[in-house]
Amino acid sequence: MNLILFAKTELDPDGSVVVTGPRARHLLDVLRVTPGASVRVGVIDAAPGRGVVTAIEEGRVRLQCELDGVALPPPRVDLLLAVPRPKVLRRLWAQLAALGVGQVILTNASRVERCYFDTHVLSPTTYEPLLIEGLQQARDIWLPRVSVHRQFRVLVEDRLDDLAGRGLRIVAQPASSLSVADVAREHNGGRVLLAVGPEGGWNDFELSLLERHGFRAVGLGTRMLRSDTACLALLALANDALRENAFTSTQPQSHRGTENS
Amino acid sequence: MNLILFAKTELDPDGSVVVTGPRARHLLDVLRVTPGASVRVGVIDAAPGRGVVTAIEEGRVRLQCELDGVALPPPRVDLLLAVPRPKVLRRLWAQLAALGVGQVILTNASRVERCYFDTHVLSPTTYEPLLIEGLQQARDIWLPRVSVHRQFRVLVEDRLDDLAGRGLRIVAQPASSLSVADVAREHNGGRVLLAVGPEGGWNDFELSLLERHGFRAVGLGTRMLRSDTACLALLALANDALRENAFTSTQPQSHRGTENS
Repeated sequence: MNLILFAKTELDPDGSVVVTGPRARHLLDVLRVTPGASVRVGVIDAAPGRGVVTAIEEGRVRLQCELDGVALPPPRVDLLLAVPRPKVLRRLWAQLAALGVGQVILTNASRVERCYFDTHVLSPTTYEPLLIEGLQQARDIWLPRVSVHRQFRVLVEDRLDDLAGRGLRIVAQPASSLSVADVAREHNGGRVLLAVGPEGGWNDFELSLLERHGFRAVGLGTRMLRSDTACLALLALANDALRENAFTSTQPQSHRGTENS
Repeated sequence: MNLILFAKTELDPDGSVVVTGPRARHLLDVLRVTPGASVRVGVIDAAPGRGVVTAIEEGRVRLQCELDGVALPPPRVDLLLAVPRPKVLRRLWAQLAALGVGQVILTNASRVERCYFDTHVLSPTTYEPLLIEGLQQARDIWLPRVSVHRQFRVLVEDRLDDLAGRGLRIVAQPASSLSVADVAREHNGGRVLLAVGPEGGWNDFELSLLERHGFRAVGLGTRMLRSDTACLALLALANDALRENAFTSTQPQSHRGTENS
């Protein structure tokens, strides 16, 4: 935990907050704070800053916050992901948030098992704490938005433009010899939407629907990857390519993004 | 399982092999093979090919193999990794092998807990099946070599040149503004050794020792990553940068590497 995050609603109008549960235990047992200690804090989707411990009482820690920090730029990469096995998805949430993703659009596909939709890893009460864990690791404040779609075709045809805009669209396909960097190089600014299929891949109908809606196939070499490994690898490559673009186009490196902020 | 791997010692001189356990269950329950079926097989560190099912008996499957396939190029990236928490390392083995790593050099560091060395995730009987699981996913045959080192200084000063040669050496440091691609671009051919520190990072002594032994700091942007996420992200970036170099230097794209083969 490199940052203690809380929701806007937890903050009192005078800038104080009372922290309980795992965050309090981290402050008390790992950081071993005492009154007067200053720690990194952040308000989700608002701003980071510092919090000074003003009181400790029965496992609760009161902090007086100054939210004058500089936020990380909001992620510019979104993920369209065929719902993976619950065990895999559970492990993925924190890592996705840590690497930085603006939104996770979960979808059905012909090779997704029906029962994957009936699991609590798709419920906000499960995934929000895991996403927040990833943000606290990465010192980020931007909570990824999540949506779940049971009809792939309706999603791609009718919903995707509203959800993710018309930025660069990429679909992972082991057969493609184009790399993320190749495709990102031609792309100036704007967002990137990465599509990662189920174990066994998209079927032909799904692939052609994606391609008709502007997705370009990129490969990761000739290796076949599990969908969680592919997600993390592609997210790292896309975020890196966008950073590279920012450097090579010699724009001033801003810590505040222009979108979502 | 996109490939059924076995050891050289399992293969009879006539090219037949009897598969049992999880590999047999995969053949019988997932692929639902019957006599005459042909499946992808591979011999670890030798060659891939096809196997034709010649007999099925009490959960055992006999295959007649033709090892005339083209292997993936052996990975050119090695990993020097401060031993992570056992739970994290257990999850990492298969993903590292799937992304492709030539060797995993595990080391102590001041912020590695002593007890991490007493765990069975550091024993070959635990990690070999997990590495093989990753290879079978990626259709690879090159088993990463693994070594465990309790003395960081002895490792870096006396052992590393023999273990990993004198290729490009990179250490992940959140503060660095150089990217993997920046550093890899100056690097023509040869191997890459990536160093990833413990939770909390290398200490100053460790970092300066790595730098004195040729490691250059690269960053992954301004995000702080857990060591497993950092490993996977850096490995994806390094493998991608090496592929990019291979393409941009317009070498013929060979499927057989020149090293380790």
